[in-house]
Amino acid sequence: MDIASAKSKLIELQTTLSAYYHAEALISYDGDTAAPSATAENRAQSLGVLSELSYRLSTCAETVETLEFLDAHKEELDEREKRMVYLLLKDIRFKQKIPPEEYVEYEKLIVLAQDVWHKAKAENDFASFEPYLARIFDTVRRFAAYAKPETDPYDYWLNEFEPGTSRQTLDAFFARVRERLVPLIKRCAEKPQVDVSVLKGDFPEDAQEKLAYLLMKQLGLDLTHVGLATTEHPFTTSLGSHKDVRITTHYHTDDVSSSMYSVIHEGGHALYDTGSDDELAYTVLDGGVSMGIHESQSRFYENILGRSKAFIKFIFPKIAELFPAQTQGHTWKEFYRAVNRVEPSLIRTEADEVTYSLHVMIRYELEKAVMAGQLSVHDLPREWNRLYKEYLGVDVPDDTHGVLQDSHWSGGAIGYFPSYALGSAYGAQLYAKMRESVDTDAALARGDLSEINEWNRRHIWHFGSLKEPADLLKEALETEFDPEYYLKYLEEKVKDIYG
Amino acid sequence: MDIASAKSKLIELQTTLSAYYHAEALISYDGDTAAPSATAENRAQSLGVLSELSYRLSTCAETVETLEFLDAHKEELDEREKRMVYLLLKDIRFKQKIPPEEYVEYEKLIVLAQDVWHKAKAENDFASFEPYLARIFDTVRRFAAYAKPETDPYDYWLNEFEPGTSRQTLDAFFARVRERLVPLIKRCAEKPQVDVSVLKGDFPEDAQEKLAYLLMKQLGLDLTHVGLATTEHPFTTSLGSHKDVRITTHYHTDDVSSSMYSVIHEGGHALYDTGSDDELAYTVLDGGVSMGIHESQSRFYENILGRSKAFIKFIFPKIAELFPAQTQGHTWKEFYRAVNRVEPSLIRTEADEVTYSLHVMIRYELEKAVMAGQLSVHDLPREWNRLYKEYLGVDVPDDTHGVLQDSHWSGGAIGYFPSYALGSAYGAQLYAKMRESVDTDAALARGDLSEINEWNRRHIWHFGSLKEPADLLKEALETEFDPEYYLKYLEEKVKDIYG
Repeated sequence: MDIASAKSKLIELQTTLSAYYHAEALISYDGDTAAPSATAENRAQSLGVLSELSYRLSTCAETVETLEFLDAHKEELDEREKRMVYLLLKDIRFKQKIPPEEYVEYEKLIVLAQDVWHKAKAENDFASFEPYLARIFDTVRRFAAYAKPETDPYDYWLNEFEPGTSRQTLDAFFARVRERLVPLIKRCAEKPQVDVSVLKGDFPEDAQEKLAYLLMKQLGLDLTHVGLATTEHPFTTSLGSHKDVRITTHYHTDDVSSSMYSVIHEGGHALYDTGSDDELAYTVLDGGVSMGIHESQSRFYENILGRSKAFIKFIFPKIAELFPAQTQGHTWKEFYRAVNRVEPSLIRTEADEVTYSLHVMIRYELEKAVMAGQLSVHDLPREWNRLYKEYLGVDVPDDTHGVLQDSHWSGGAIGYFPSYALGSAYGAQLYAKMRESVDTDAALARGDLSEINEWNRRHIWHFGSLKEPADLLKEALETEFDPEYYLKYLEEKVKDIYG
Repeated sequence: MDIASAKSKLIELQTTLSAYYHAEALISYDGDTAAPSATAENRAQSLGVLSELSYRLSTCAETVETLEFLDAHKEELDEREKRMVYLLLKDIRFKQKIPPEEYVEYEKLIVLAQDVWHKAKAENDFASFEPYLARIFDTVRRFAAYAKPETDPYDYWLNEFEPGTSRQTLDAFFARVRERLVPLIKRCAEKPQVDVSVLKGDFPEDAQEKLAYLLMKQLGLDLTHVGLATTEHPFTTSLGSHKDVRITTHYHTDDVSSSMYSVIHEGGHALYDTGSDDELAYTVLDGGVSMGIHESQSRFYENILGRSKAFIKFIFPKIAELFPAQTQGHTWKEFYRAVNRVEPSLIRTEADEVTYSLHVMIRYELEKAVMAGQLSVHDLPREWNRLYKEYLGVDVPDDTHGVLQDSHWSGGAIGYFPSYALGSAYGAQLYAKMRESVDTDAALARGDLSEINEWNRRHIWHFGSLKEPADLLKEALETEFDPEYYLKYLEEKVKDIYG
């Protein structure tokens, strides 16, 4: 083998894998958005075949030989090639340790599990989902043991979703968060409740869809490359490359803020994904690098910008134009206070900024316990409800509004949740850094996010997955990550709302 | 190789190909229904890769060896296996003759051409589409010459779309159709015009969508396996197997009958596709066998049932419920007359039953001339307009309502159109046969199509692609195909409407 032909094989491999991933992602997306209800098994059949093909290609002797040859000739590779080889080999090292039939079985399992979860959530029927969830936990535990037998299985997955994290770092992070936020939330509860009537009423779906598109444009998304659909649980997915990204939302006709902040959140993911350098398309470097960095962007747009005074002052008149009757007699200040109220609640995706991390912490503790074998999947609903009472003081009325609310576990994402809290904290520190050179309030007041987006593009987006998350963050911040920025930011926000 | 392992490879091959075709069909479907506007190149990239992979698999040495082994041991195969081997080898023989890079190039071309056609149609801009269409005609002519150098290229494609047909059989068929229908249309033109005001008004899309779902249910489609979406041009596609079929429609807010009959037409295709025996799923025998038989079903439901007195008497009150203001003061008889009026017009998909075959004949003559090199693609609009004047007496105002109206050519389907007219004629004869044992009028009056569907299932649908179209038809009819049934059927309908 010579270096030139190995490099050309490296590109060809990624081009082919991108096409497989396009197909696999689109089949899943179709299942969530458009497919008739009884077609999950048909999708599982095709996904099983395609994932086996992509699995085989990415682990076959020729691929391994090429990548190991390139790895042995690192000095002849540029930065991008080095990183491609590193990421592909990392993936291979993992897959080589998983028996192929178990891998394919797992792919089929999560397609079915997602279908069962949809029905189970709709019908408040945890029992029907339980055997699937138990198999998912068993599988991820087993896969982690195959991959890194010397490591704790949950540590393994935490580090997969956000390289550099572990139970140790997260226990410390959440302890600090809990210590500062729990008293803060208590103090808020003692104050008079914030009036949220400005958010409530009857908001027809078609007008909410108009608002969704308006927000997407306002965020600076290129709607010729980013699509919108509705799903049970909002998400963002890339199809083939960063040139085709889809976000989804869910309209609640009794509350205008629910879909609004889903769209801004997913829009943040889409800004990050579509912001990759064009040359990264159809390579493993295309799109965001980790869940934590991804959430740092989505929650930055959703909360730090989307719930800021300046943005709400700008956007409220546009909301009022779409919903004149519903907003009559209300002001942007009421809207600002309402979307920033602190109020322990049941649903993570609709939680306020301050209680949000406690929702995440509960999931983290539950995952940790199940992965360690200290809690059975069967007992998850009971334990879920207990922790919600303990940390948030709320009574969970049913599993639909409890343990069944999120799609993540049905998709096999065990260890993902902590990245939401980490991302929020990253975002707050990035915000402080950005403000050294960008007048964000002035930009938001003008409704023109281009300077803000440009800062994110230059420091985060355009790299795609070229850098390790910790390095990317450190370089953007020009210092170490410190959750203090996040906690201070929340304390100031609370002070502004509650005095 | 032993026969058991060859048979198991035969199944594995088809399972894998079905997954590729699922992915390819879904990427196209996504492009037509949901994708953001500037993502065609991204789809072309992935489709190029996937079609090359499926092409390689279906023509690789191992596949050929397996199929030739099975072909040499026909006596050990059952009827289904024999037919699978026959169809797969037929495809291979074709593909082996096409240089792989030309095949992949062509797949990319038609993805781009469809995108360009969409824009060209919207903007009445044939010039932008012309180079793509010229390349498509060149390619299909070249591919036919590769595949069967001794056969005329257009004959080659006619026979591909409907085995057994050629310019000779179609010239004879269309001559007979023309000879009987042209005077019939003339006689209609001399009668007082039919009042179509019952169809006209303002029909909002959301209510039309409700009507679409109602019609799908009424047809007996299983909505847990058949989906509905909107596209520029209505079509039907299967994803992976007959267990997931999608139909599309296009709502015209000024005419309730346009989407209505699109839905019934595509619903007929979907009934046929979803009616395959379950054991045929993920094999080449799954789904309808030819374009002609497919159209015999779609146009049977659309016209013979959908425009019948009995069905309209049944369905009109339901339409009136959805559109009370628009239908006020109108009767089912007016509706029956309006949807059966004979009136030369511009748009094939909205043409009446009687003039319809002339729309098809014009396309047949144009394709024949371009394929023979007697007409350039550049001159197609002029010749299109001339033939519409000659046969139908109408002036084509622009290419949007002329040569750009249909999607078929942009998708590479040259030689497809004649099957619409053939299918209509097949359907009329199948209808006559069905009525020997089924009281279709009584079934339609009850609004219960199950007996009718059962007849079609038993004689047509459940076979999938197991039989050659001509054999399938002959066995269902228990006699030879004879266009006389079709012409008589139309003459009777005209007599009923025009006296």
